[in-house]
Amino acid sequence: MADIEPFRVVEMLTRAGELQAAGVDVVHMEAGEPDFPTLPQVVAAAKAALDAGHTSYSPAAGIPQLREALSRWYRQQHNLDVPAERIMITPGGSGALLLMSALLVNPGQGILMTDPGYPCNRHFLRLVEGRAQLVPVSPAQRFQLTASVAEQYWRDSTVGVMVASPSNPTGTALTTDEMQALLALCQARGGNLIVDEIYQDLVFGDAAASVLGMTDQAFVLNSFSKYFGMTGWRLGWMVAPEQAIPALEKLAQNLFISMSTPTQYAALAAFEPEALAVLEQRKKEYAQRRNYLLKELRAIGFGIEAEPVGAFYIYANIRGLTQLDSKDFCLQLLEEHGIAITPGADFGSHLASEHVRFAFTTSLEKLQEAVRRLREMFC
Amino acid sequence: MADIEPFRVVEMLTRAGELQAAGVDVVHMEAGEPDFPTLPQVVAAAKAALDAGHTSYSPAAGIPQLREALSRWYRQQHNLDVPAERIMITPGGSGALLLMSALLVNPGQGILMTDPGYPCNRHFLRLVEGRAQLVPVSPAQRFQLTASVAEQYWRDSTVGVMVASPSNPTGTALTTDEMQALLALCQARGGNLIVDEIYQDLVFGDAAASVLGMTDQAFVLNSFSKYFGMTGWRLGWMVAPEQAIPALEKLAQNLFISMSTPTQYAALAAFEPEALAVLEQRKKEYAQRRNYLLKELRAIGFGIEAEPVGAFYIYANIRGLTQLDSKDFCLQLLEEHGIAITPGADFGSHLASEHVRFAFTTSLEKLQEAVRRLREMFC
Repeated sequence: MADIEPFRVVEMLTRAGELQAAGVDVVHMEAGEPDFPTLPQVVAAAKAALDAGHTSYSPAAGIPQLREALSRWYRQQHNLDVPAERIMITPGGSGALLLMSALLVNPGQGILMTDPGYPCNRHFLRLVEGRAQLVPVSPAQRFQLTASVAEQYWRDSTVGVMVASPSNPTGTALTTDEMQALLALCQARGGNLIVDEIYQDLVFGDAAASVLGMTDQAFVLNSFSKYFGMTGWRLGWMVAPEQAIPALEKLAQNLFISMSTPTQYAALAAFEPEALAVLEQRKKEYAQRRNYLLKELRAIGFGIEAEPVGAFYIYANIRGLTQLDSKDFCLQLLEEHGIAITPGADFGSHLASEHVRFAFTTSLEKLQEAVRRLREMFC
Repeated sequence: MADIEPFRVVEMLTRAGELQAAGVDVVHMEAGEPDFPTLPQVVAAAKAALDAGHTSYSPAAGIPQLREALSRWYRQQHNLDVPAERIMITPGGSGALLLMSALLVNPGQGILMTDPGYPCNRHFLRLVEGRAQLVPVSPAQRFQLTASVAEQYWRDSTVGVMVASPSNPTGTALTTDEMQALLALCQARGGNLIVDEIYQDLVFGDAAASVLGMTDQAFVLNSFSKYFGMTGWRLGWMVAPEQAIPALEKLAQNLFISMSTPTQYAALAAFEPEALAVLEQRKKEYAQRRNYLLKELRAIGFGIEAEPVGAFYIYANIRGLTQLDSKDFCLQLLEEHGIAITPGADFGSHLASEHVRFAFTTSLEKLQEAVRRLREMFC
């Protein structure tokens, strides 16, 4: 238990809530949760599923209709051939992380992953007595793990590499060449490549390269939370090599029994053309916010060493503005200026004390208010 | 992975589905899933929650309203004092098992549990590199684990005892004295007592003794699936000692982020007086089915060595009727007579080849049809 850390963002959320209750107008840029509501199509489909009595256990791998809907979506939206049989529905991206960790990692073994990175990843490995083998990644590499660096850190106990593209907290993505090189390294070493593609559909320029177009042997984690705006429903999925599916299904039977059945029927509606059109419109709005915030934060003096190409985060260096530790800086911003952001320590330790994460999961008007307050502080 | 077994009941369900698709009239007595639909009050509350926009992440320990509703229900229905702060909402009983295993068991350590018992329990321990220390329990002990037997099996690596009362697959419960003795043993040895109370509210005669009335130091697992009829929603809860809550909350943050938010709001409606009245009526119907099936199975020649006092299962010895292994017997019943039940092997290995589980999760009319077919076979 001592190895498992609480999220600092939760403390931040709690304190922000207290301040708000006390009348402070807080600008929330701390949570990785879309401010857009779940699509009305999905809500309507959930109600229809309840009326139709879809409230019993369903297959551990997910309802066939949803696995097939994802397979069609991969073909139509991404021009990728991903058979439904290779898609496991999971209880959130968290469920996919649990299955992946349980399947691939024996005690003492480890997976290379970036510092900074999504903090829960390492705790799933710790749960199964494996270890996250953290690789400090620098702004020069856009905070991403490259094959040459991964090779340096590869040990006898390493069984794979995990990357997120685009990544949380930085929003940077791997190029096709970089992903290919990582894949080649994993294949040469007999390890597995695991790619978190949770932000894959929130890329603002040219689409980031999905590993699914390069191999059928990678493990891909995804979720309905971010692009599809379904955080509180807890639904995700995983694409796995065909030969891994029977073992994953056995694990899912034992660990989950079933996913939420009405939620799976609800998610089917997210693939309707009108629903997808709304999601693409939302993506444009994220892009606007990103462009605005990037320019303003730079003008104020934050160091944006690697520009985000996707997700809804900007990872910023504060050393041009303050010598405070980023945790103290975040507390000061919240207490004195009503701006809630997340300190780097939530994502690891490498360069954490000089970085903070801004989440642009709030309206442009709110972002403008935050910028106004920051200008007052620093300009 | 090799240590994790698939459910045989799933194969049985699959084959039963195939037969049904081919026109066979199958009587389903294999699944531990209520045949009653989710309460209309709960469905209506789910819709209202969706309309109100309750689709965001919610606190990792559960929404305060649901923790408080459970606390009130414990007081009003069970005359038990269980503060809301000690109640963690979980993604199904499965989620509670994951939290408990992660919190209490280090690699190489184990928890004593019964064989036969709910098969997933041991796999959660295996996941965290702990071990289920299976104790063969006999009909003479009503297939329950008593303190004197637990004491014999206690080893240096034992960190607790887990019992289910009433139990799956037998429906038998521990008496107050038996539970007190187990508690005393655990306290004397510095171990934890974990009680699966998932069927606690499906006891047909006098209520089974909840360990919550005896101590505030036990871990209690429960679920909205069975008594509350919400299987496919995946919602459960856990009552833990106060001092364990911060660690459980930290684990839940990392492993689940949040439970389904709309589902938690939906579950609030299950505690309305009219809803509880319907659930109590359903319990009476289960009792009728139990009484009918118990009498008829005995008349046919099944050996019911321990009568179920709760849940919706009868665990029956087949040796008075056949020398077949129970797996083959179940297959024969399904293939030749269209009756789907579960072989003992799904619940362990002790006496498994001579036992089968009947689930009376189908209407009295269907049970009568199954009895008619069984009479044709054996009488």
